Order: sequence, then C-alpha cells, then structure tokens
Amino acid sequence: MPTESVPLLLTPGPLTTASSTRNAMTVDFGSRDQAFIRINREVRQQLVALCADPAAYSCVLMQGSGTFSVEATLGTLLPRDGKALVLMNGAYGRRITHMIEIMGREVVTLVDDETEPTSVARLDAALAEDPSITHVAAVYCETTTGMLNPIQQIADVTAKHGRELIIDAMSAFGALPLNAKRTPFQAVVASSNKCLEGVPGFGFAIARTDALEAAAGNCHSLSLDLHAQLRGFENNAQWRFTPPTQVIAALHEALRLHHEEGGVEGRGGRYRQNCEALVSGLRRLGFETLLPDELQAPIIVTLRQPADPNFTFTRFYDALRQRGFAIYPGKLTQAPTFRIGCIGQVTPRDIGRFVTTVAEVLERQDITSAAP
Amino acid sequence: MPTESVPLLLTPGPLTTASSTRNAMTVDFGSRDQAFIRINREVRQQLVALCADPAAYSCVLMQGSGTFSVEATLGTLLPRDGKALVLMNGAYGRRITHMIEIMGREVVTLVDDETEPTSVARLDAALAEDPSITHVAAVYCETTTGMLNPIQQIADVTAKHGRELIIDAMSAFGALPLNAKRTPFQAVVASSNKCLEGVPGFGFAIARTDALEAAAGNCHSLSLDLHAQLRGFENNAQWRFTPPTQVIAALHEALRLHHEEGGVEGRGGRYRQNCEALVSGLRRLGFETLLPDELQAPIIVTLRQPADPNFTFTRFYDALRQRGFAIYPGKLTQAPTFRIGCIGQVTPRDIGRFVTTVAEVLERQDITSAAP
Repeated sequence: MPTESVPLLLTPGPLTTASSTRNAMTVDFGSRDQAFIRINREVRQQLVALCADPAAYSCVLMQGSGTFSVEATLGTLLPRDGKALVLMNGAYGRRITHMIEIMGREVVTLVDDETEPTSVARLDAALAEDPSITHVAAVYCETTTGMLNPIQQIADVTAKHGRELIIDAMSAFGALPLNAKRTPFQAVVASSNKCLEGVPGFGFAIARTDALEAAAGNCHSLSLDLHAQLRGFENNAQWRFTPPTQVIAALHEALRLHHEEGGVEGRGGRYRQNCEALVSGLRRLGFETLLPDELQAPIIVTLRQPADPNFTFTRFYDALRQRGFAIYPGKLTQAPTFRIGCIGQVTPRDIGRFVTTVAEVLERQDITSAAP
Repeated sequence: MPTESVPLLLTPGPLTTASSTRNAMTVDFGSRDQAFIRINREVRQQLVALCADPAAYSCVLMQGSGTFSVEATLGTLLPRDGKALVLMNGAYGRRITHMIEIMGREVVTLVDDETEPTSVARLDAALAEDPSITHVAAVYCETTTGMLNPIQQIADVTAKHGRELIIDAMSAFGALPLNAKRTPFQAVVASSNKCLEGVPGFGFAIARTDALEAAAGNCHSLSLDLHAQLRGFENNAQWRFTPPTQVIAALHEALRLHHEEGGVEGRGGRYRQNCEALVSGLRRLGFETLLPDELQAPIIVTLRQPADPNFTFTRFYDALRQRGFAIYPGKLTQAPTFRIGCIGQVTPRDIGRFVTTVAEVLERQDITSAAP
C-alpha cells in the first residue's frame, strides 16, 4: 500500500519500480569487470530485439537523461550539412528543435496544436516541397499531453520521400508497438526509466549500424558522440566513460520482468487497463480529459483542472501526496491542467484506489464539481 | 570479506561503497517531489561547503559521467572566442584537449611527460607569452598514473596572470585539500562516484556564480549547458531534465558518511594510510611504483609489471579477482603497468589482506621476482 513516505508515483517517470529492480542496485560492480560486461551485452541485445533486426541495427547506451540520448542521436546522425524537420505538438518536439538550433544545424518545424496529432498530409507536402530536408524527427507519445502521434503513417510518408526518421519514443518504448521491419526508422531513442520500468540514469538509441558507422566526427560533443560510444562497446564491450553501473544492473532486472510480463504486448496491455480505469473513474467524478480517447496514449493522461473556486492544484497535490499518491503538474501553455501517469509498477487496482482517494479529497476540499 | 561474486574494488571508481549508501537507492523518488527536492538542495549546499564560499560559488549537478561535467563546464565557461591552455600529462588532460577541439574553440597545450608533474615555470612562461589565453585547464590528480599535480602553484601562477582556472578534480575532490579561498579557481569539477564514495550517474561543477550567470547561450549543447542547469535549480530547485534520483539519494547518504569520517581531512587520511600500506607492502614483494613517493597522490598507484616471463596481466588479474579483489589495467602509452586504487570503502586492513593475496598469487604462478 502506498504511504506518505513512499508514495505511488503516477508520473511520466521516474516511476514506481519493482523491488527486485531496486534491489539489483545494491551491488558495487567494477565497470571493467566481466560480470558487468555481460550485463551490458545482454541489455544491448535485448533492447535491439524489442524493436529491430540485430543484423542491421545496434543499441548504443548513453549516460544521462533521455534528453541526452536524443541530443546524442541527432548530433551524431544529422549531418552537419543536413536539415531536420521536427514534428512539433508539445514540449518535447520544441526541445528537439531547440537542441538542433544550439548545435548550429539547419532545422525547420511542422507545428500542430498541442491537442492535435501530427498532420501526416502536411508532412507529406512539406517533404515534397523541400528536398533539402534529410531527417524527420518525431515524438511517438508527446508526454506534454499524452498524445499518441501517428508514427506508422509518419514513418511511411518519410520513407516514401526517401528521408530518414528519428523517433523520440521516450515514453512509449517497451509498451507501444514499434518495429523497424514495419515502421522504418533510422533511430529510435528512449530511456531506462519509462515503460521499461528501470530507474533513471541513462538512455539509449537503437539505430542503423551503417548510419552510426558512417558518422565519425559528426557529433558536436565528445560525451554525446554515439559513433564513438558504439566503437567503445564494439572494441571491448565497455563504456567509453564511467557508466552508471547500478542503474544498468537495475535495467537488466527490469528487462527480465518486462519479458516475464509478456514483452511489449503484456506491458502495454496493463498500461491500457490502467488508463481505461483512470479515465473512466475520473470521468465518473466529473473530470474531463484534454484529449479525446482516440488520441490518448495509455501512458499519461492530461486532465483539465476543475473550475470550482475551491480547487487549487497545490492543495489537491498535497492532499493526494499525504494519502500516498504523487501526481504530476501540467505542462501546457494553454489551459490549466494536471497529469496522471499510467506507467510503472501500477495495476488497475492501484488506479481504483487512487480514484477513490481523489473522490475523498474532492469532498474534503469542498469541491462540488470537478468539471473544468 | 571480499568474495569472487562481490569483490573489493581497488580501482579509480566505480568503487566499493558503504551498504547504507547502496541502500539509499532502494526508494523510488518522484523527481518533482518535496522529499527529493530537499535532498538536492542539501547535496548542492554540502558540495559547495567542501571547497568554496557559498556567497560567491554555486554547485551545479549534471547527469552523466564525470567527463560530461567537465565538458559542460568548459562548454559553458570558456567563451566562444576564448582560448584554453590545457596542462597535459596524462589521458585526462588529453581528453580535455580533445573535447575543446570538438567544440571548435581555440585550445593550446602544455605537455609534460606522464611521469612528470606539470611544470609551473613553463606555465608561467606560456601565460606571459600568450595574453590571448583566457582559461587554464588542469587535472589535480591524473588518474592515468596517480600523479599529484601542483595545483596550488598552478592556481597561483594562473591568478598572477589574471586568467581563469578550471580544475578537473575528479579523483581528488573530497579527499585532497582544495578551497577557492586559498587556491583560486573559476570552477572545479568532480563526480559522485570517486572520493565522495557515492555511486556513478552524475557529476558536478562548483563554479563562480557570476561566471555561470554571465554564460547564457555560450554552451555548444542543450543537455550540457551549466548556465541553464543552474537556472533550473534556482527557479524551482529542480533538475531541467530527468535526474538519476536513486544515485542522488546515494550521494546524499555518502556525504553524511564523509562528514562523519571527518570530511576531507578524515577521508584523505584513510586514503593516505591505504596508499602507504599498499606501496610498502608491494615494494616488500619486489614491485616498483611508476612514480616516486613525492609525486604519488594517495588515490591510485601505478605499478610496473614484473619482467618475470611467467607474469601476464590477465592471469594475475583473474587470480586476484577469484580471490575477491578487482584491480585495474594500466593506461600508459609507455611502460606496461597496472593500477591499484586506494579509494572507496577500503581500509588499511583490506590492503593488508590484498598484499598477502598478491604474494600468494605470485607464488602460485611461479613468479619468482616482481621486479620490472
């Protein structure tokens, strides 16, 4: 049962993880020791196996948060004279644009409203119109809103025009379907602490090996050079620079649990059940979701804040927190919202308890209507 | 007692840590939760307090290995039209030079042999001769060899010429004396998993607040921008991008233990005892250290490999590893060597047991002389 001191995290990550995942961190591994090298090899192989053919794709692990891996992937794979088109309908698309600007490479954007999925027709037109675009960067699930972008159509259109696709699948990888055999991509990027239910500390890219190998000297940063990082792994199966040993051991265990749960299908299935229980439960209390159900990824749900004058987000957050649930603030530039994650070691039963607790808090705080 | 499955790490890090430090990782913190925000605030305050006046210096935590923090610090504080002079007598000085080259900023080097400390007289001359040098980058303890560079004289000469000093104190911070009041620096960089005895996953810089604040837009990387990272901490006491929550909780506990041991003096004292026990013990067996005692930092010791034809490093390593000790390969471009770390949760008694084990392995492997 969640408590005030150890709440259940209903956030986009870091998440509530399995106790065996956390316990995997209580060992001090030598970073050049065989036991640790074996763990790295298995983690890299298992991550590729989740989404691509290992004969054509390699997994490169990268220290830092997921953003570091996104920057490493773009910095390494987008040529210095390349041009990126970023599909933007939330904060993570904006962040990708910003990082490419800082690198000093050419970038254009295709902007949709935060409540609209990427327009594939406009993408098609943009690529037809501008043959100098070499890469498309897309966010699979926009954590800003919980939006599910149409990644299959985005991949199909990008491939049709012969351009490369880089997918930020941060809060989708391991729970939503994605395989390069069906959805062509040059690279997909994610991190240890989202749907794979590890702890935070590193990210990874799974990218075409030939593209990584051809990218020597392209990266703007020593630390974030994915080409050099891959060469390190290939030369001696070791990280170039000190790896977060405990965090990697945790993902190794988390991947075992992911497999045990039935892989992407099993994990995604539980998250969908969580999401359905959450949305239907909160709707019964009068809440409204930002997105219609068909655009909602089963990862994180954005809810409009109640219009009731007794509602303030901080009071609401604190009351839930005292009762053992940590929720997440909104990130929208427009309407006042908050977010509830469906991911991590969370079951539909936990969500049921959460909905009951929300009802209790609304009553205690004299919020008679949760309608926005 | 160390065992084959959980060896004592006699390496430059990741290290053997205290069990309470590892156990601090078994909690899932929400990255925006008050409990975690308090931990970050305390970690940042305590790190500044170890080496500088908090009225003039700020601590910025940065995801990734120590190298990421070094690159972040140089990328943020070295102006785009600045010029760095890197003091180079080992792999870490070379790495700094390389990362500045990749950033596309001007860099020159002052090279000393790997077995010689930085020549302060030549530094003095170089700064006198080239007024366009804005920054000096120095490595306090060169982990390549275990060399203790003359950081006080380097700082004095750099200050005399009115230039800024950036110190890579990766394997010195927390064990060797360093305070900006006596040893003027613009920034010092270190990481969670060295002499502070945390686990790997992030690094930090302690830098003049005015310099960090003046560095908006200077960094070549979004992820590694120390100015933006500081603004994040100051705005809402939170990390800009997902922090390695468990690793930070571990350093919080490790800093408590560091304080309990008597801070820099206590920690450095134990390491000196370890180093003396190690060097005298191995010399009794016939080994020779690469460096004379006066250049040896009490952090990691480089030993020449025995000339005896029965000695091979891999066999020697494996035999020690089976008996519960993980040692470290050499990193020298010149003579064949190996390295033994003195840091982490290691006592002179552990070192005594290690020396006894080395003697046993030499005998088993028919190595009659350990002389190089």
